[in-house]
This record gives sequence, structure tokens and C-alpha cells, in this order.
Amino acid sequence: MTETLIKVDLNQSAYDNDMVHNRWHPDIPMVAWVKPGDDFIVETYDWTGGFIKNNDSADDVRDIDLSIVHFLSGPIGVKGAEPGDLLVVDLLDIGAMPDSQWGFNGFFSKNNGGGFLTDHFPQAQKSIWDFKGMYTSSRHIPGVNFAGLIHPGLIGCLPDPKLLETWNTREQALIDTNPTRVPALAVPPFAATAHMGRLTGDAKAAAAATGARTVPPREHGGNCDIKDLSRGSKIYFPVYVEGGGLSMGDLHFSQGDGEITFCGAIEMAGWVHLKVEVLKGGMAKYGIKNPIFKPSPVTPNYKDYLIFEGISVDEYGGQHYLDVHIAYRQACLNAIEYLKKFGYSGAQAYSILGTAPVQGHISGVVDIPNACATLWLPTEIFDFDINPTADGPTKFIDGSIDMPLSPDL
Amino acid sequence: MTETLIKVDLNQSAYDNDMVHNRWHPDIPMVAWVKPGDDFIVETYDWTGGFIKNNDSADDVRDIDLSIVHFLSGPIGVKGAEPGDLLVVDLLDIGAMPDSQWGFNGFFSKNNGGGFLTDHFPQAQKSIWDFKGMYTSSRHIPGVNFAGLIHPGLIGCLPDPKLLETWNTREQALIDTNPTRVPALAVPPFAATAHMGRLTGDAKAAAAATGARTVPPREHGGNCDIKDLSRGSKIYFPVYVEGGGLSMGDLHFSQGDGEITFCGAIEMAGWVHLKVEVLKGGMAKYGIKNPIFKPSPVTPNYKDYLIFEGISVDEYGGQHYLDVHIAYRQACLNAIEYLKKFGYSGAQAYSILGTAPVQGHISGVVDIPNACATLWLPTEIFDFDINPTADGPTKFIDGSIDMPLSPDL
Amino acid sequence: MTETLIKVDLNQSAYDNDMVHNRWHPDIPMVAWVKPGDDFIVETYDWTGGFIKNNDSADDVRDIDLSIVHFLSGPIGVKGAEPGDLLVVDLLDIGAMPDSQWGFNGFFSKNNGGGFLTDHFPQAQKSIWDFKGMYTSSRHIPGVNFAGLIHPGLIGCLPDPKLLETWNTREQALIDTNPTRVPALAVPPFAATAHMGRLTGDAKAAAAATGARTVPPREHGGNCDIKDLSRGSKIYFPVYVEGGGLSMGDLHFSQGDGEITFCGAIEMAGWVHLKVEVLKGGMAKYGIKNPIFKPSPVTPNYKDYLIFEGISVDEYGGQHYLDVHIAYRQACLNAIEYLKKFGYSGAQAYSILGTAPVQGHISGVVDIPNACATLWLPTEIFDFDINPTADGPTKFIDGSIDMPLSPDL
Amino acid sequence: MTETLIKVDLNQSAYDNDMVHNRWHPDIPMVAWVKPGDDFIVETYDWTGGFIKNNDSADDVRDIDLSIVHFLSGPIGVKGAEPGDLLVVDLLDIGAMPDSQWGFNGFFSKNNGGGFLTDHFPQAQKSIWDFKGMYTSSRHIPGVNFAGLIHPGLIGCLPDPKLLETWNTREQALIDTNPTRVPALAVPPFAATAHMGRLTGDAKAAAAATGARTVPPREHGGNCDIKDLSRGSKIYFPVYVEGGGLSMGDLHFSQGDGEITFCGAIEMAGWVHLKVEVLKGGMAKYGIKNPIFKPSPVTPNYKDYLIFEGISVDEYGGQHYLDVHIAYRQACLNAIEYLKKFGYSGAQAYSILGTAPVQGHISGVVDIPNACATLWLPTEIFDFDINPTADGPTKFIDGSIDMPLSPDL
Repeated sequence: MTETLIKVDLNQSAYDNDMVHNRWHPDIPMVAWVKPGDDFIVETYDWTGGFIKNNDSADDVRDIDLSIVHFLSGPIGVKGAEPGDLLVVDLLDIGAMPDSQWGFNGFFSKNNGGGFLTDHFPQAQKSIWDFKGMYTSSRHIPGVNFAGLIHPGLIGCLPDPKLLETWNTREQALIDTNPTRVPALAVPPFAATAHMGRLTGDAKAAAAATGARTVPPREHGGNCDIKDLSRGSKIYFPVYVEGGGLSMGDLHFSQGDGEITFCGAIEMAGWVHLKVEVLKGGMAKYGIKNPIFKPSPVTPNYKDYLIFEGISVDEYGGQHYLDVHIAYRQACLNAIEYLKKFGYSGAQAYSILGTAPVQGHISGVVDIPNACATLWLPTEIFDFDINPTADGPTKFIDGSIDMPLSPDL
Repeated sequence: MTETLIKVDLNQSAYDNDMVHNRWHPDIPMVAWVKPGDDFIVETYDWTGGFIKNNDSADDVRDIDLSIVHFLSGPIGVKGAEPGDLLVVDLLDIGAMPDSQWGFNGFFSKNNGGGFLTDHFPQAQKSIWDFKGMYTSSRHIPGVNFAGLIHPGLIGCLPDPKLLETWNTREQALIDTNPTRVPALAVPPFAATAHMGRLTGDAKAAAAATGARTVPPREHGGNCDIKDLSRGSKIYFPVYVEGGGLSMGDLHFSQGDGEITFCGAIEMAGWVHLKVEVLKGGMAKYGIKNPIFKPSPVTPNYKDYLIFEGISVDEYGGQHYLDVHIAYRQACLNAIEYLKKFGYSGAQAYSILGTAPVQGHISGVVDIPNACATLWLPTEIFDFDINPTADGPTKFIDGSIDMPLSPDL
Repeated sequence: MTETLIKVDLNQSAYDNDMVHNRWHPDIPMVAWVKPGDDFIVETYDWTGGFIKNNDSADDVRDIDLSIVHFLSGPIGVKGAEPGDLLVVDLLDIGAMPDSQWGFNGFFSKNNGGGFLTDHFPQAQKSIWDFKGMYTSSRHIPGVNFAGLIHPGLIGCLPDPKLLETWNTREQALIDTNPTRVPALAVPPFAATAHMGRLTGDAKAAAAATGARTVPPREHGGNCDIKDLSRGSKIYFPVYVEGGGLSMGDLHFSQGDGEITFCGAIEMAGWVHLKVEVLKGGMAKYGIKNPIFKPSPVTPNYKDYLIFEGISVDEYGGQHYLDVHIAYRQACLNAIEYLKKFGYSGAQAYSILGTAPVQGHISGVVDIPNACATLWLPTEIFDFDINPTADGPTKFIDGSIDMPLSPDL
Repeated sequence: MTETLIKVDLNQSAYDNDMVHNRWHPDIPMVAWVKPGDDFIVETYDWTGGFIKNNDSADDVRDIDLSIVHFLSGPIGVKGAEPGDLLVVDLLDIGAMPDSQWGFNGFFSKNNGGGFLTDHFPQAQKSIWDFKGMYTSSRHIPGVNFAGLIHPGLIGCLPDPKLLETWNTREQALIDTNPTRVPALAVPPFAATAHMGRLTGDAKAAAAATGARTVPPREHGGNCDIKDLSRGSKIYFPVYVEGGGLSMGDLHFSQGDGEITFCGAIEMAGWVHLKVEVLKGGMAKYGIKNPIFKPSPVTPNYKDYLIFEGISVDEYGGQHYLDVHIAYRQACLNAIEYLKKFGYSGAQAYSILGTAPVQGHISGVVDIPNACATLWLPTEIFDFDINPTADGPTKFIDGSIDMPLSPDL
């Protein structure tokens, strides 16, 4: 049987598991070593370490201290991996914990991180999704059921000191442009809630003081939230330290492009079965700055889409210059308005876009001044027909069920 | 036989064809009327009206006056279509002109419009692509051959006066923030080169003075440059004026997401076979602001991709806040560096990304401060294997051929 | 412009076009020569040479003399191709004649060839299909509309004398087992209606006496009726004579696996744009006996199927041993019964299975005594939902329209 | 957590598990009852009940007594299901046993059942396949690795007495035409090795005497070996007895169309997670004789194929009339010859066709006298390029490894 290299106990605090960490720092000790060619299993907490519960209240989404995230399993050393190499990782399989066949999705309060559409959904809301084999559905959002595109939201290797310094410097510079903004522009190191794995004492304190937060994707990959890094895919990660130091977590049962709800995809605890190889000197050979990857041969094969366009004129009429972020937001808002015609609340529609295998495509980015983005909504995930017809939409959803909401205190 | 409603003669100036126009204005007269359920053919010039030639010099790309674009065929009235309806357009088929089986791609000089990567490719360059049935290849870019994903870059209905006013106002406001920027932030109405179809005299002069330029995508669709609006797709367009007034042009034999080279996709003259229907009151029924569409059942089925990630840290190390535009630029630059390892010049690699059925996906847009975007490069379009291997890349391309370049005068 | 190597005039008898032939024989002279790497266009008659008309009577299907088929365009010589080579043919594109945008499908009378289900549909029937760009529909079969998977039903190289002798000998041996069977077991050479291309006089008479009929697929390919040899595919043909001698015809706008209606797919006149290369000594190098091919990257992408199973127990309860032919017939009959519940006549349902991009898969062939075959019916080709529901089927088709039938005289 | 309704212990004889049976008979008692809408898990033995071992000898494949197969888990009753209904089964997920991550493939001796190509491979041979997450590879067949298309080879409801009688009568009639044939034409009831679940005593003896063997697919589905009945698919089964009586087994990690090696696919022990619903009166409503199904949205997405044609002329030159079985055999033999050019033994090539997600399509079945079938070999499952090139094939496989063979004693 394949060895489980890192185990997690969902009844134990993630802080008490020394094979887990929640900051990026080169000094975090490897918790295990493997050889090129090895395959092994890694268990992970959900990104919040179990803070969000399977219940019908959004209080936990409202109250969470986001400085604790993300709880990652690792780092794992690969013998022979050296700076400049590429660590080739096959995601052989991924699953939820057998006794934890559910996940959560939600929106943070605007005062606690917000989300892509936080101006429209400023309060904490939550939906719970049950897994039935390959499929998921939610008791808070009727009429939708789909096969998961399971993936780790966060995976990558440890930075070296120079790269870490680069991250901290450039992000602090951005924060300094508007340090009191809500939500924040970026999040700096924060020692109080840092979990530095097997580091202890002064070494831990020193590393915690500068350990990079795990929130953004960066050169090493990290929190990319790319739904297509799914089970079956192959990823080439830059290596910065001896052994690489591969860590991962933030597993998603499914997610739409953009992870627009921020809290987040369908978030779950689970396990990853991986194989590792080393491509010596691969960074220079192939000119690699960020990870590259090849998609899985096994992904949900939804083919019938209804596609929504958005341009970089914001919802208040403001004109922006080739801004894909705003264009995609418009496409999302357009899709939400459309789904409301079938009886969904805005929050339910927003959650569907954040969890289902929705695609976000970049269309024109050169036709001044408007960028164009498209949101691809798979029609087959609905229990009813959402295509436009001459008769107009039927309200299949009667509005009797909605997502729990917890107003700011 | 299906009627050809609008014909174009590639040997005649587009300005002399009164079924063509290059501005958006509600006063442009319909050139033909059809009934719901009708199918018909529309011929179009290439977007420049034939200015770019099938030769080995980029002088025309350097010298073009971009105020002349885009030459559109139409507008076509559909009986019974009224403001608030949706015009349902089936793109039954699209093709190049039988005696013009080629297209062009290029980058404008930074002083004449530039492109997505104009800081890296500031001079005019051009590649010519020959069509062999469903496939295309270029004498200026060896080693690549692919099936076209043919589509109109530009299609939509006439605006009403109020919508036109909205466009002109908001775009001028943006221009006013930096009126001397090179390239410009947006382009205002410009009467001198306006072609207002069948309008003449004072009516023409009046409309030309306020006719919106055709460059950006807007609420009505327009220049969306969405490669997936391809032959076989079905589009639902908002209707603003009696009859709709459907115009189209800027046909592309193929294009990558973003149309990053700006000049442009593989641009061609050709024809579109369409069918139209009217969905009465569809805008309100379905909450439609921008067009929606359903993809074609018949598109190139490339499945093996090499995927490049980019984050919103620019190529000079600057940190940007959740900026998908910059993230996608990094993914593009990463892909170009990769392709150069196989012997391509940067310009050739850039052109491949602009022309092949490359996908641009929006990945994380909430993980402050970095957006993440991915560029999906189909590996099957190359004559050789571009996947990473332990041996490192082989220079299949010997560098003896490059794209013509015309320095600024 | 690409050269049209062979032209056909639909108003002229195919017998009067000396670049056409309807038998296989090594003596048929090449009508044109090309070089490896050349691309060119070949026009073809429909397989009957225009006998079947675009009208509402099946008399022509009943009355046709099937000894005249198939009218093929060619043979074309490729310089340097020698016996033992593989002729590599790229089907760059295929289309209907611009002024002939329609095709036919039907069942022959059991007394004149029959079809796969001739015991159930023993009389001549016909449906006419109109082409609208990529799509087709029939005035005789409401409620169905689909994108064509265009392909040549028949394509291959000339046999050498030894191979021809093998064909004639083994087929005659089969005929001799039951020479009076209706329908016949096989069809022998028949000089009276032979068209031997540019052969004349005694040479023609001699060749016509032994020229193999074009009906069956054989080692060289020939009348394979493989729907997946579609536009965009690449085929490797065995070469038996100097120059190869490539001929083709029997173009299909669309066809289901099996071409079960025999008359046939959606049959049309049209053109093929090809490119040829030679792979020297390829037959021995790769152990090739029959053609091999690679599918097109561009095919209708129907993904939602309703799948019918059949086993090798015939419709009268008879048990057969691992007989895939019978298993597939049962799957077809099962699908027809299903479609009748929605209001189709049996003939209409049969025609849909013969024309739409239906897949026929071989499932178990070892589980004695029953073979299992499956028929994959794409649900998206229907204007209505054909999936099973608790409410049972709705008769969307009211039975007011049926296919013309012409009883035997 | 989802309930596991039936458990199996791989260290216990299948005969000792009374929730297992190996014959079809209406008297076999239900081992559990569920309600429409329930989901639950069923564990199963491999089809041989553990007879074939994970080792490097084919002795077990040679020596197996095939009268013991297939060991099925069930029957399960569904409340409210009555004769004439359809039992709607969602295969929510399927997997191997956690501590048994391997499977076997092989060919029986011609004297013990043989296989599709038994004349060419008359001796017992075996290959063992290891599972690594979604992927599998074999230590006996180098150079090939693919994602599994996991499915139950055998699933269906209990027959009623009349249907059972029909089966036994028609199969005995076939046996009687050649009762001493090797391999046999069909297999009759055989009490000595019957496992009748919870039946005991006289009732067991009576049922064992007439219980239908589980080998062939029949009207109820049963041993269809349809690779596309994979995890995620939805099946509509005819119901013949009160409660339906659903049984299943013969799990396959992967299989090529036809299961041509007979022993069998990649055979494994494992579990199935199902959901059941009842469609009242569905058989008559939809005219259902055999099961129908809808494919999974999640299946291996191999898209680049090399396709081999075969016609119904056998490998000894014999001409057969529209015989798809023989045509497919030729396509298989052609593919084997091709793969041998890359260094594989014939047995290894045969095993690849039996295990990988190979497609078998029925092409022309009306072009007398030759049927045409195609075998679609996915090229991406190989570690090297198997496409034809001008240089001819490279022997990537050095022949140092072959499959164990056990000659008849």
C-alpha cells in the first residue's frame, strides 16, 4: 500500500500538528524526505483548519480570524532536488476524508476580507455541500448538482531567503499606498498566529516574524486557485532550496474560475496522492519563472455552456482601461442577474459561480478602452433547462430556501 | 441557393461600397431587410479594407491609418425586431473568400496603437498565413500548423442615441485623464475617415461627427474578439433600434484568447452565413445587458495543452492589486520565453500566441494582492514535441526565417 | 488558388466524364499526376451519379439500377509512389457543391439491395436533407437538426492484378454458396454498366469484364463508410501500383455508424481538398494491411448521449454466437422503438440513425454466447428533450409528416 | 457516512459470504432493502473470487475452473419497484479496495474458454497491473500508463421465472448444435459450483439446477462488459421481480471495447457507490427491452487516436458476409502487428488492446459482402510516439520483459 507520509486528525488543532504550517519560510524544516520516482499520500486540513462547520449558520464565516490561514501539509524534501531544478509533481488522485464527505462555500464580510463581489454581497453567508461519490449538491442551493473538479488550491515549494525578501518588500510597498483600506490591499507577515511547523523557540520566532502569508499566488505557485490543477494533472514547480520543500493544502472539491466567492471554492479536508520527479536544471533549460502544468486527462466533460460577456465598464457606468478584472466582474454580475430570473437569490447564484466548474476566459484585451471577458456556465449542472426560450424563464426555484446570512456584529 | 445579401469586391475601395460602414450610429440606414427565420450570406472586407497586403514587408502595418477601421457589412434590418428584444443569430458557417485564401497577423508600432506586449515588441512586424482547407500555416513562422477557429471579431446591433451618447461621454472622460498618452487610452469620434454607409450630405456629416469608433467591445457586443463566437455558435444580441441593424466584419481565421497581437488575429476577408430570429422582450425577461451566446458544436478539439501561469507582479517586479491584465501578460511572456528555447524568435512566439487557438483563463482573482491567469498552449499545433523532457529542449527551429520588421520612420 | 484537378458537371452524365470510373481495375489510366506535398481539389458526383432527385417521391430509390454505382473521381497518380509505400492523404476540407446544398437518404426495396433492417422496412423510402451552412435538417423528418460530419464514403488506391484476382475469387466463392439469395451475398463484375474512365475499346472491354465492384470495403480501403474519415483527418493508404491511383467519391454530409440505411448516409455531390505525401516502404515498416488513419481535430462535439444496448439474440428470439452484427441490429431496433414513443414513424427513426452522428460501439465480444453492441444517440440533435422522465415521453412529433414510400411494382 | 450495504472480506471464500451469488435465479433472496432515493455502497470480489493472484505465473489463469464465476454482490431490493418499472441507477463512484490496489488481465487457454484471438494466443498468459491513484501500469508490459475508466463489467436485476426459462432454452438450443465444441458455444446451468446466496437446502438445490450462468449479457443487462458504464453514468434497468433485485460485480479498472482478452479487462475487487430511483411503468412507456444508459461526465479524455480498420475477410483469406465480429478481429490483429514493430510481443500488444480505453466502432455494415470495423488506439497512453513517420518505427521496447505464459499441462 502507498505510504501516507503526513496524517492529520480533524479532531486535533492544526497548530498541534507539527507536519503542518501556515507561512512560507525557508527555515521551516522538512517533515519527510522522499526519492525521485516515489509516490505517497499527504493528508491535509481544510484551509481554515476546521474553523468552518457543517451547520446552518454563517457566524463562523463572519467571525473567522483570517490570519490563521492556510494550514498546509509539509514541507516534504525530495532527495537530489536543488535550486534551479524543476520538481515534477503528478497529482495521481485527490479525495475528501472518508468520514468528512462535505465542504463549505461562502462570502466573507466586507470588513473581513470580502470577495470579488463584496460591494454587492457585503455580509457573511455560507452554503454547505454534500459529496455523493463524484457529485456534490447543497441543501442551501436547490436545483444544482455536478461532478467535482477536485484540486489543491495551494501547492508549491519553499522560497529561498532572497525570494522571500522580494515578496515581503513588494507587498509591503503596495500596502503602504493605502494601509487602512478595507479590505486590505495585501497582508504582511504576522507572527501571532504563525504556525512554523517543526520550528521552535527563537528560530520559530525569527521565522514567524518574516514568514510570508500564504494568501497570494506567487512565483513558486502557492495559492493559485487554478481549478485545472486537478487530480490527474502534472505540474513543474521551480525549486529554490535543497530538497524543494513541497507543501500543499486548501483542497477544493470544485471551484469556478476566479474562486470569486473567496470563502472560497467548495473547501474540504482531504488527501492527495502524489508522485515526484526532478528535472535537473529545468528552470534555465526552459526559461521557467512560474510553474507550468499539463491538464488531467480526466475532468468533468461539460460541453453545453451559456456564455456571458462582460466589458471593462463597471456596474456604475465608470470607464476603465483594458481592465480584465472589471470585465470579468461584469460577466459574473450578468450571469447572476440571469440566474435570478429562474428564482435563485443573488447569493445562491453567486455561490454557483464560485463552486461549479465555471470557466472564465479572457477575450479581447487590446481593443481600447474595453477589455472583454466571458463567463462560461455549464448548463448541464442544473436540474432544469436554463437556456433562453421564447416563453421566457420559468421560476423553477421557489425561493423557500436560501443561504444562511450572519450580519456584522 | 442562399441569397448573398451584401457583396464586397476586394478590388474596390470599401469606402465606395455603400453597404459598408466604419462607425456606430443609429442613423446609418439599413441596407437590407430580412424576416425572422431567414438565412442569408454577408460578405465582408478584412477589418482594414484591404490595406494590409500578402507580401513580405511590414511597412503597411507600420503605416496604416487606424482611424479607418473597422469596415463592417450592414446594417441589416430584421422585421419585427424592436428595442428590448433579443436578436438571435445563428452563425451557420463562415469562410474566407474563395480567391483570397490567406490572412495576416502583426504588431503595430508602439506609436501607432501598439499591442498587448508593445513594450517588448515596439516596432511593426507582420506574418502572412496561408489557408489550406481547414488548416493554416505561415511562411514566416515555421513548425506550426493548425485548424482555424473561424469567427467574426466584430458583430452587433446599432445603438440608439442614448446608448451612443453614453459611450461617447464615458470614453471621452477616460481620454481626458491623459489626452496625450501613446498609445491612446481610447479613440473619440473622427469624422474625416468616417464611412457612414448610405448616409450622405448633412446627415452623413452630422452622424460622422458623433459616430462611435468601432474599436472597443461595448454593451451591444461589437468588437469583442471572442474566438468562441465561431462558426456554429448562437448569439443573443440586445436590440436598441427598430429592426436591430445587425452589422459584422473583422473576420478571423483563428485567434488566441486576448487577440494579444492586436493586428490582430489571422485577419481575412470572407463571408458569413447567418440565420436570424427574434426573442420578443428578451432583454427584460432574462436580465440581459451584454450579449450571451452558446458555443459551436464544431470547434478544433485540441486537448493536450502546456499551461503557463502568470501573476499580477509585472515584468519589472512591480506589485499590482488583483490585476488580471498584468497576470495574463506575465503568462504570455512566460510562454514566449519557453518557445524561444525551441528556436523561435520572440516575435514568432508572440504571433503564435496571437493566432493559434490559445486559451486565456482567469484563475484566482481574490487572493490579495495577486491575480492569477493561465495561458493554455495546445501542443498539437506544433510539428515537434514541445513538452519538457529531462534532455532539455531541442532547437527544432534554426532561426533562418523571421517575421518582416519595419522600423518606425 | 488551389487547383481543381477533376471537375464534374452535375448536368452531364457521369458516364460522359472520363475522369470518373465505377469499377476497380489496375488498368484504369491516371487522369492526373501530382507530386508529394501537393494540395488540390477533386469534385465528385454523388454515388449514384445524380439518379436520386430532390423531390418527394421514393420512386427513384425503388427503381435505381445499383450496378451503376459508385461513380468515383480519379484515379490520380502521385509521382514516386510505388507498391509497398503508404500514400498519406490529408483531407484538408470537404464540401457540397455550392449550387447543390442538399442530400438524400433512404432505404432500398428488399428486392433491390435492402438495408440493415430490410426485414422491417422492405419498401423504398426516401428523405431529403437541406444544408444550411454546417447544419442539416429534413422536410421529411421534423424535430431534428445537426452539424454534419462530412466525409468521403469511398476512397482508396487502385489494386494490382493479384489483389484484384483475390477479391474476385473470394467474393465469387461466397456468391456460389447461395447465388439466388435476395438480397445478394455479394456482387460480381458486371461489364454492361462499367465506366472504366479513359479506357476505351478492347482494353476497356477486358478491364470491365473483371473490374471489381465498388460496393464493399477491401484491403485498400474503398467503400469503408467510416464517418470518422472526416474533413481534417489524415489517412495512410497502401499503394499497390506505380503512382498509387487514388480515387474517391460517395461523399456524405453526415452518417451514423454502420450506414445502416444503405441508401445511404446523407448522400451528396461535392468536392474534396486533399494533400498527398508518400511514406516510402511504409507497408512493411509498419505491418500495414488495411489503411490506418488519425481523426480530425474538428468534428461535431456532441457529448450528451442516450445509449441503447443490443445483444446477439435476434428479434425473433433466436440465439446467435457472439454475433456483433445482430447485437447492433438489436440496439438499432431498440432505439427505433424508443423514438417512436415521441411520435416518429419507424422509418423516420431509422433514417435518423442512418444520418445523424450516431456512434456504434462494440462492447463485449467474448461472453458466450452473446455479443453486446451499443448505439449512442446524441440527444442534442433533437429540438426537444428525449431523455426518460417520470412523466413518460411527450409526443412532440404529431405524425402529420412522413417519408415518401414507393411500394414495389 | 454512506452505509456500506454489502461487505466482502478478500481473505474469506466468496462461497462463505451469503450476500454473494454466482447464478441468476428469481428465488435468490434479497440481502438488503433500500428506498428510492437512497445511496449506499456495495463491495464486491473480483469476478473469480480471488482465484487469480498478484504474482508472475499464469498457472492460475490456466487452471481456473470457470464454472465458479462471476461472484456478484446482491441482490438488493428496492421498495416499490415492480415488474415493468425501470430501476434508475446512478453509479456515483467506483474504486478498488484500499488494500488491494492492483488488477489482472490475461488470456485463457483455448482449452479453458480461450478469448477473441484464441487461435493466435492459445496458451494461458497473464499481466498484473498496479494502480497509482487514477493511473495504472504493468510490470509485465513496459511503456504504457493510462487513466482507468472504472466500471462494473456485470450489473443487472434478477430475471423472473419466464425470462429465466427463455434464457436456458435458447442457450441450450445453441449448445445442442455443437455440444463438444472447444471453446463451448454457451454454458448451461451447473449446480456443483453454484452459489445461490442465502438459499439453502432443497430450495438452493432446486434453484442451482436451473440458475442461469452469469457469463453472457442478456435482456436484463448482466455481463455486458460495456466500458462506458463507468463511474458517473446513469443506467435504466428493466425490473422483472418485486424489488428488482440488483446485483453487481466483475469490476474493471479499465477495459478496451470488446474485452477481447476475456480474462478479462483489468479485473479487480472493489466497491461501488450507487443511488437508486424507480421510474414507474418505464418499460412500456419507453419501449425498453434492454437497459439504456447515459454516459458519465467524467471519463478519460484521450483525443489523439491511431485508428485501425478491419474488414470481414478473415486472417486466412476467407470471405464472410457482413460479419462485424470478424471485421473487428482483423482490426485488432492489424493493431497488434503495428505495435510489434515498436518491440512489443504479440501477447503484450493483445493485452494493451484488452485493457486500455481502446474504442471499437462499427463502421459500414451494409456494403456487401464486407463489414468494416475500426479499432481506436489512444496514442497518449504510450511513453513514446507511436505515430507513423518517414523514418519508420523505433523499437522503444527492448523485449527483455514479457508476460508470464503457462503452457497447457
